[in-house]
Amino acid sequence: MQATPIAIADPPLRNSSGLHAPYALRTIVELVSEDGISGFAETHGGGRILDDIERSRPLVVGCDAYDLGRLRLAVNAEHGHSSQTMDTAGSMRTAQRVFGALEVAALDLIGKATGRPVCDLLGGRVRDEVFFSAYLFYKHAGGGGEGDDAREDRWGEALTPEDLASQAQRMVAEYGFPSVKLKGGVFPPETEIETVMALRDALGPEMPIRIDPNAAWTVETSIRVAQSLAGVLEYFEDPTPHMDGMSAVRRELCETGHDIPLATNMVVTSFADVAEAVQKDAVQVILGDHHYWGGLRAITHLGQLCETFDIGLSMHSNSHLGLSLLAMAHVATATPHLSYACDTHYPWQDPADEILIGGPVPIRDGSVRVGDEPGLGAEIDRDALARGYERYRQRGYRERDDVTEMRKHVDPNWEKKLPRW
Amino acid sequence: MQATPIAIADPPLRNSSGLHAPYALRTIVELVSEDGISGFAETHGGGRILDDIERSRPLVVGCDAYDLGRLRLAVNAEHGHSSQTMDTAGSMRTAQRVFGALEVAALDLIGKATGRPVCDLLGGRVRDEVFFSAYLFYKHAGGGGEGDDAREDRWGEALTPEDLASQAQRMVAEYGFPSVKLKGGVFPPETEIETVMALRDALGPEMPIRIDPNAAWTVETSIRVAQSLAGVLEYFEDPTPHMDGMSAVRRELCETGHDIPLATNMVVTSFADVAEAVQKDAVQVILGDHHYWGGLRAITHLGQLCETFDIGLSMHSNSHLGLSLLAMAHVATATPHLSYACDTHYPWQDPADEILIGGPVPIRDGSVRVGDEPGLGAEIDRDALARGYERYRQRGYRERDDVTEMRKHVDPNWEKKLPRW
Repeated sequence: MQATPIAIADPPLRNSSGLHAPYALRTIVELVSEDGISGFAETHGGGRILDDIERSRPLVVGCDAYDLGRLRLAVNAEHGHSSQTMDTAGSMRTAQRVFGALEVAALDLIGKATGRPVCDLLGGRVRDEVFFSAYLFYKHAGGGGEGDDAREDRWGEALTPEDLASQAQRMVAEYGFPSVKLKGGVFPPETEIETVMALRDALGPEMPIRIDPNAAWTVETSIRVAQSLAGVLEYFEDPTPHMDGMSAVRRELCETGHDIPLATNMVVTSFADVAEAVQKDAVQVILGDHHYWGGLRAITHLGQLCETFDIGLSMHSNSHLGLSLLAMAHVATATPHLSYACDTHYPWQDPADEILIGGPVPIRDGSVRVGDEPGLGAEIDRDALARGYERYRQRGYRERDDVTEMRKHVDPNWEKKLPRW
Repeated sequence: MQATPIAIADPPLRNSSGLHAPYALRTIVELVSEDGISGFAETHGGGRILDDIERSRPLVVGCDAYDLGRLRLAVNAEHGHSSQTMDTAGSMRTAQRVFGALEVAALDLIGKATGRPVCDLLGGRVRDEVFFSAYLFYKHAGGGGEGDDAREDRWGEALTPEDLASQAQRMVAEYGFPSVKLKGGVFPPETEIETVMALRDALGPEMPIRIDPNAAWTVETSIRVAQSLAGVLEYFEDPTPHMDGMSAVRRELCETGHDIPLATNMVVTSFADVAEAVQKDAVQVILGDHHYWGGLRAITHLGQLCETFDIGLSMHSNSHLGLSLLAMAHVATATPHLSYACDTHYPWQDPADEILIGGPVPIRDGSVRVGDEPGLGAEIDRDALARGYERYRQRGYRERDDVTEMRKHVDPNWEKKLPRW
């Protein structure tokens, strides 16, 4: 097992927690079988997950790549199954994060050993193309990186409704995305309503639009925004914090005849959260993410669970490279109930930082095509991986901290406050 | 694809629907890959399932054994996903039954092609032994079969509490079962309460005991029996018909301080039934069965679902041979949440009817050991299979009909009535 931390340039994107740093952090996990076949996974980055993965080394080395049931139990025991950690995507269980990475690498390895794509190991595909959504951000000028590694900015500053409409048009034109999502929670709600309406004007009424203010709004504000955007939103993601807040928003919207689905990757981040969400009707769409739900098979379980309870299923993304995108695509294609285009930050990453041989995974007509190549369908460019590691080593970022970045670059007195409005 | 209907001797076992016929019917499905590897599955028997499987032939032949996601959609479309059929195990969806058989055969084939046990294709085992429960029946004398094929009766008549206690002691001594289940709904509830108490006296207070009257009792009777058996039952299976009946029993038991879990394989027989059951708190243990839940991966999904909603998971059985037992064992070992010993009718079958090379699958110390042999870990004895087919052909049984058997052998005026008491 080899876990390699890397840093990749990330533009100054805004959200309710502040500002993206010049680098996003990822970890590349490699498992090598005794016959010399390597399987890879990409997961969250920084020092803590790296330590967590390293702690699992004695459980992994010598393990059979198929023996994932017992490995999961061992990882759970090692990390304390119920221990929780917090980061920007909400409450995540360390064990599920570690096991998720190990499982993806093991499945890539098995796929390569047997000559089968990973989706075939998950029950087989139900579609060849997996659709993704454009992920629109308010942003400052700059393309990420810093110092002599600063990148050119393809997208420019985008801090007004007009800027976002233009960003959306370019991104949809370039990638063919069938849906767009606005990362909100940055400006006062009226500005973000205006932005959504500008997106609608720019993209036409057929384009599904989502907004995700990451819990920046009170229950009352959430209800007001939803009513203002009635008939415009495909779904309304995490407008307000906490299960009870989401439930209150839902109840009021239903009572006033606004049956807009609430989506989440903040109040439901593991199977342990689902029963309460169902009981309180707090969410109508769950954004799964194999990186913290415990791997690809866990997402197929989540698909059946969502189907059973008539909950929609979409997919969450952090800043990521192509290996994560491929893993998302493989599990998405083997999950019949996946009912929405998935999130992806991929267009924000600099193709120069991709670690796959052949460069970035193509997104064409809004979708990633899952082919018949073994495993995840990609090989690692070890020189590119080494460059990513060098950036990690030299640039010094060790954990994501959007608040500090916000203070450093935008407003020294900025405070994170959820809800803010 | 080859689907072979077989008949196997079945003793005159009683239940709330009547009497087992002299033969139980099963179907053996074989899928042969173009490189000549065969995968096998065992499923329900008789003419209808055989026709249903044959209707799927054009969907299966030429299909890649890994391509199960698309096969499932195609089978669903062929059989009408929402069409329901009824048999003794409740409402079953034809498509799920057909796909379940095809999936098991495909996984056996994949396992044999890759040299891996089926449990490894499902996420890997979490245990090596899968525990089963003794399945006790009121029965008449006779070991099944008829005419010149009539079998010797190892077990004898068992129609009194004392007979059942003796049956239980022999079966537990012979197989080491760690739990026993009484098939009830045959005699008045007082007699069955008496039988449970006789089992307890014979086996000791540590032995978990379940009773399953298959919906023979009213809500009131169910409550009365549960209260009489407070502290004795491990779980209380399908005492009364319908979701609302089960829910009413549960509510009253909780209100009177009897927190005995209600189990079911009658009111929850597919994912479509789960949401209502959760909402009404109608069942606390679901008995899964890959034969009608849609295969082995579906059971792993059910395991996660049950864990998520804090519902126990056990496993249902019909009369079956070793291939079904092995499939149950493989999925059970890859389903961490499986929280109870599984049902099995296997001891009631005549070893002479087994179709596996080497004879019956051993149950030792109450468990089936899942080994590392490829696929389900068994090879088919084609001569034994041919003998099973001959019995099917000659003996003329084409569907299970416990009512007709009851009238023929016990009481010509017998009527099925659920609830009866």
